[in-house]
Amino acid sequence: MSSSVSHNVYFDGKVQSLGILTEKGKATVGVMKPGTYVFNTSSHEIMEIVSGVLRAKLSGGEWLSYKKGDAFEVAANSSFEVKCDADVAYICYYN
Amino acid sequence: MSSSVSHNVYFDGKVQSLGILTEKGKATVGVMKPGTYVFNTSSHEIMEIVSGVLRAKLSGGEWLSYKKGDAFEVAANSSFEVKCDADVAYICYYN
Repeated sequence: MSSSVSHNVYFDGKVQSLGILTEKGKATVGVMKPGTYVFNTSSHEIMEIVSGVLRAKLSGGEWLSYKKGDAFEVAANSSFEVKCDADVAYICYYN
Repeated sequence: MSSSVSHNVYFDGKVQSLGILTEKGKATVGVMKPGTYVFNTSSHEIMEIVSGVLRAKLSGGEWLSYKKGDAFEVAANSSFEVKCDADVAYICYYN
């Protein structure tokens, strides 16, 4: 029997995600409302954009823009900053 | 100021989705746990698979299999049946 989908709420509900087990391992599918957010990683992450445009700045890096199908990697135990002017959907793979 | 992301729970939590406004209009990003589900549509929908494999049977049609990047359209005021053996993530556009 399957359990429920896990649901995560961040930043007063402006970022929310749903847990999923994929063929690439654990992941979350999420939506961000317009804003600027900082995320801290505990594991290596691959963020792939599903809808919208997300600007992201990795620790020590510069701001880059990602659209549907684009992805970026984030090292474990680091942080990254993101900004969006409209809603963004993403899938984040944890390795 | 942005409001919270909307969160929808179906089938005892085995299907959950998050609302998003996209450049194609309103949509939801969701996750399904393994199972068989029937959905009823009020508007025209385009379902696109984000992760996993979903089998779907439109009203009067046959079972077809859809993987990441594949999409199918469902007419308004109809229903469709889906099955998955592992978790599936999708984005559903409402026109």
